[in-house]
Amino acid sequence: MTMQITSTAPQAPVAPSRGRLRPLGQNEVRITGGFWGDRQSVNAAGTLRHIGARLESEGWLPNFDLAVVGGLPERRRGREFSDSEVYKYLEALAWEIGRTDDAALEQRFREVVARVAAAQEADGYLNTRFGHPGQGSRWSDLEWGHELYCLGHLFQAAVARERTRPGADDGLLGIAVRAADLVCIEFGAQGRDAICGHAEVEVGLAELARVTGEPRYLEQARLFVERHGQGTLRDIEWGRRYFQDDVAVRDAGALRGHAVRANYLASGATDVAIDTGDDELLASLRRQWDRTTARRTYVTGGQGSHHQDEAFGEDWELPADRAYSETCAGVGSIMFSWRLLLAGGDARHADLIERTLYNVVATSPAPDGRAFFYANTLHQRVPGVPADPEATSPRASSSLRAPWFEVSCCPPNVARTLASLDAYIATADDEGVQLHQYAPARVRTALPDGRVIAFDVETDYPVSGRIRVISRTDAAPGAEWTLTLRVPAWGDGARVRVVPADGGAAEERDAAPGAVEVRRAFRPGDVVELDLPMAPRLTAPDERIDAVRGCLAIERGPEVFALESVDLAVAGVDDVAQVALAPGAAPVDRDGRVWIDVVRHSGSDAGWPYGERVDERGGAASVAVPLVRYHEWAERGPSTMRVWIPAAT
Amino acid sequence: MTMQITSTAPQAPVAPSRGRLRPLGQNEVRITGGFWGDRQSVNAAGTLRHIGARLESEGWLPNFDLAVVGGLPERRRGREFSDSEVYKYLEALAWEIGRTDDAALEQRFREVVARVAAAQEADGYLNTRFGHPGQGSRWSDLEWGHELYCLGHLFQAAVARERTRPGADDGLLGIAVRAADLVCIEFGAQGRDAICGHAEVEVGLAELARVTGEPRYLEQARLFVERHGQGTLRDIEWGRRYFQDDVAVRDAGALRGHAVRANYLASGATDVAIDTGDDELLASLRRQWDRTTARRTYVTGGQGSHHQDEAFGEDWELPADRAYSETCAGVGSIMFSWRLLLAGGDARHADLIERTLYNVVATSPAPDGRAFFYANTLHQRVPGVPADPEATSPRASSSLRAPWFEVSCCPPNVARTLASLDAYIATADDEGVQLHQYAPARVRTALPDGRVIAFDVETDYPVSGRIRVISRTDAAPGAEWTLTLRVPAWGDGARVRVVPADGGAAEERDAAPGAVEVRRAFRPGDVVELDLPMAPRLTAPDERIDAVRGCLAIERGPEVFALESVDLAVAGVDDVAQVALAPGAAPVDRDGRVWIDVVRHSGSDAGWPYGERVDERGGAASVAVPLVRYHEWAERGPSTMRVWIPAAT
Repeated sequence: MTMQITSTAPQAPVAPSRGRLRPLGQNEVRITGGFWGDRQSVNAAGTLRHIGARLESEGWLPNFDLAVVGGLPERRRGREFSDSEVYKYLEALAWEIGRTDDAALEQRFREVVARVAAAQEADGYLNTRFGHPGQGSRWSDLEWGHELYCLGHLFQAAVARERTRPGADDGLLGIAVRAADLVCIEFGAQGRDAICGHAEVEVGLAELARVTGEPRYLEQARLFVERHGQGTLRDIEWGRRYFQDDVAVRDAGALRGHAVRANYLASGATDVAIDTGDDELLASLRRQWDRTTARRTYVTGGQGSHHQDEAFGEDWELPADRAYSETCAGVGSIMFSWRLLLAGGDARHADLIERTLYNVVATSPAPDGRAFFYANTLHQRVPGVPADPEATSPRASSSLRAPWFEVSCCPPNVARTLASLDAYIATADDEGVQLHQYAPARVRTALPDGRVIAFDVETDYPVSGRIRVISRTDAAPGAEWTLTLRVPAWGDGARVRVVPADGGAAEERDAAPGAVEVRRAFRPGDVVELDLPMAPRLTAPDERIDAVRGCLAIERGPEVFALESVDLAVAGVDDVAQVALAPGAAPVDRDGRVWIDVVRHSGSDAGWPYGERVDERGGAASVAVPLVRYHEWAERGPSTMRVWIPAAT
Repeated sequence: MTMQITSTAPQAPVAPSRGRLRPLGQNEVRITGGFWGDRQSVNAAGTLRHIGARLESEGWLPNFDLAVVGGLPERRRGREFSDSEVYKYLEALAWEIGRTDDAALEQRFREVVARVAAAQEADGYLNTRFGHPGQGSRWSDLEWGHELYCLGHLFQAAVARERTRPGADDGLLGIAVRAADLVCIEFGAQGRDAICGHAEVEVGLAELARVTGEPRYLEQARLFVERHGQGTLRDIEWGRRYFQDDVAVRDAGALRGHAVRANYLASGATDVAIDTGDDELLASLRRQWDRTTARRTYVTGGQGSHHQDEAFGEDWELPADRAYSETCAGVGSIMFSWRLLLAGGDARHADLIERTLYNVVATSPAPDGRAFFYANTLHQRVPGVPADPEATSPRASSSLRAPWFEVSCCPPNVARTLASLDAYIATADDEGVQLHQYAPARVRTALPDGRVIAFDVETDYPVSGRIRVISRTDAAPGAEWTLTLRVPAWGDGARVRVVPADGGAAEERDAAPGAVEVRRAFRPGDVVELDLPMAPRLTAPDERIDAVRGCLAIERGPEVFALESVDLAVAGVDDVAQVALAPGAAPVDRDGRVWIDVVRHSGSDAGWPYGERVDERGGAASVAVPLVRYHEWAERGPSTMRVWIPAAT
């Protein structure tokens, strides 16, 4: 593995024009193993191949071929947004090629791009669902047509490619530029005063502007952001908040409506605020993130409480058993949080990214990377039915992971996130490097003044809480730089230790939640050790979260745990509904698992279930049961599961 | 007011061929005022006129005219099931005419019937959405087309008319018979092996068989019931359980899927079980009622936990804040419970009817009878937006009552229930009369052996718990009969007293929950007084109902109460989310309202809402706030509301 040391545009999904922190790209940070390295390997070997095959067999890639031969609309297959899955797949391939330089993937990438290119109209229009003879006309269904949404994903794919293989001759950037030029004509200040019913084009245009230097694209992104809340979309049963077309972005108090749309829009709006210097908008987005995190986010980091409209609930409306917590909303939340982290350097944004990575993004795919959760419930009441490995599932009704969905946004969204994950590990500022996520990694970069920074990270986190950073650079005398290590909000009691390579005395001190800095003229072999407290802990919800009142969750490090019925034989029951936490129960680590004491419910099984208050659990014997990491649940067959466990009173 | 004394087929919606109890119809029981009499008056003066006008202005009645002049499908308006609202309106008119003999309503009834009649095809087919040139062919969309569903409501309307005006020359019964004959040909044993995606035709056919004596209709109803669970409908995202086509009716463990469909099917299946002597099926339906009541019913009697598919949740899945509790599901539940009550005489079925009448059916309409709740949430988190009195709302998103809905099944369903409510008050068996619901009423009937029974009921129930039954018959010497009075399950401590007209000593005794019997040779002026305990009470949920763990509700008599934000100024807050019940709080009656002590929450308004358990309410001062009857909430403008109130720990 070789990496070029550079301080130019990073090989990363997000490259803001300004901000507190500069992202380090794939060319500067490389995950070398561990929890996330393993998942990246599965992503490459399992998920990307699986998606590639499904895009063919479902007809979503062949739709582009049909556009060329005039086979639309009769033979077209898939929903109106199926083009976007091809683009997300291309984006994932671009990141994976950037990461591993895999020749087979490069060949596949070029083949897919060629098929997409062939379907583009002379004026830049590109969509297999509209605009062909016998189809609805272009831009005729902005509420549900997803044309601009699809192009947003096309733009992100082109950005990924240009950042990882600048100047490549595959043609993807040209496709994107032609489409973006058309969008600017059709939807510019002199064009349609309209937006897309699913935000995404904003974030795609903003990054395309950064890659190409074309200010029209940024301006177009700005126009789309500003037009939200003007009510240009038709009203629908769930209200215009579904599309975020109810209130202007800068006037909103929290994310609301469809949770993926909301996060994509917030991400694009942040890009616009950064690149146009709109600090009022940026401050509003920060406040919206604060309230959304405080009142509309599950303990897993998941977002979206409604199945019906895949939407955020109201403040405190966070039902565990009807949690939608769509995988793609988790991906969108990471996009939004990452942009705010780069802008302001607030560790809380990195905390939520970590929580969401471990408990949403890592939960979705099966161990083989070929089946996925679309929704991520926190409470499974009845055992799921195993999915047919050959079939396509409705989007969210599977209670076990399914290989594909009619609305199959989640698999390629997970794939592009994992393939680009190296670029979410660390950032730099003028004085050093900040580590936000902990994984075995190799980091090589240079500060603007030329100071070279090189270190490796060794850790088995989150198995243990020890992270070792080993310096690999011999700094010039006096060339100090600052290594900043995030200490998660749960990390009270963390300690940091500096062990000089020259055998000098180690220094150790407390590292309070937030971040700890080590400023030093690092020499090769100097080691900085961070010890995060990894004892399992009981977590209580805010008392206003009605749905989990009287319950506790168990966490350890960044991982949320769950009670799963397949572990309950030791308690003589087969359903999580039958037990509660024993009074005073505390979780313990034993034999690589976390255990907790439970007692059996003694409720009656018949009759009217409302009446005088009685304590039904007095004197019940307790028994220790093992918990499962939430991201590993449902891997042992059908089961019931709950993250929030009733506390016996 | 005159009433004919009869023991032939009652002037009532349900007339089983056998069973423990015989229903007394409008011709035998007449509500004379009080809580339900007032609502019947509003129903006649407000709701029926409102529905009649809307059916015209929405185009749903004119659709029938269009069928005649060839204006379909171009000018047709309304959803695929809009015909059914016309039929439910006819049913409501029929009962109201039976009750009050209103000449204007009679004229309107005949006019509507004539317009429906004109649209019927020569072979009996009748539907404005299918079967005409340019429309889908007949029976081509059994999943969603609702053709048989519409006919089921037509049959119920014809039954109502024939029971209230036997032999009337308006022609409605003939329309129904021609349509039913066609259904028997098309879907009989030699016809399509198929069912309708929305149950209703079963219950309509069964009653039509009872009215006409035509056994083919009962057999057709039986076939439809037996075909459920065969998977003849296409699978959908929510599974075939949505249509109750997942499991045979007799093999099911509980009601499931779409809550209106489930209750209508259970009602029709009960009719079939009764009239075919299928005691195995009847026993299964009783068990399903038991489990549905014990695990899938809200404290209001409401049913259906899911907005997305308007469906029952799993056992114990009863979120207050996402309660769908559709008004029509409440009507369907009353239909099912009433049939089981007639079959077996179990007071629990009458208890659920009462609970559902007071807390679902009475909650839906506004005081003027011109706006309705479609869904009946138990927890309103954000103040609703007042509905435009001229507009049509999406079905369930209104958090204030709305005048009409795109899916407007609820207004006519409430109307037909209230117009026929006299027939749900009392029953008879060979030895006497049973009073199941308490309202000021006049009762006149005769037992099979000729014993005449006549009494009046005087009560202001549920304002007070005193029900007075005053005998109006002079029984022949030795002609005793038994008056049975239901004592609700919450009625522990009830007392019954017999005060003879002749000045003899009164007898008084305890009346345990269930029923109390008074057997006597009643003389004119003899009085039986029942006193039900009406102190407000705290109600706790079964500990397995996750969504309301740690909360209590307040009830008084049959009425559920709620905390509404407009009453909270006295506590210095403006949102129900800001308070909890004070430790040890007990509700009290004062000045005609029920009051309870609450304390203010002190939760923080920012930051991650999950962490170590802390008691945030220590030492908070309590203040008494008034509660609102749940059926009266949202009548004072936008507000937040909750039935289940957190209990301070």
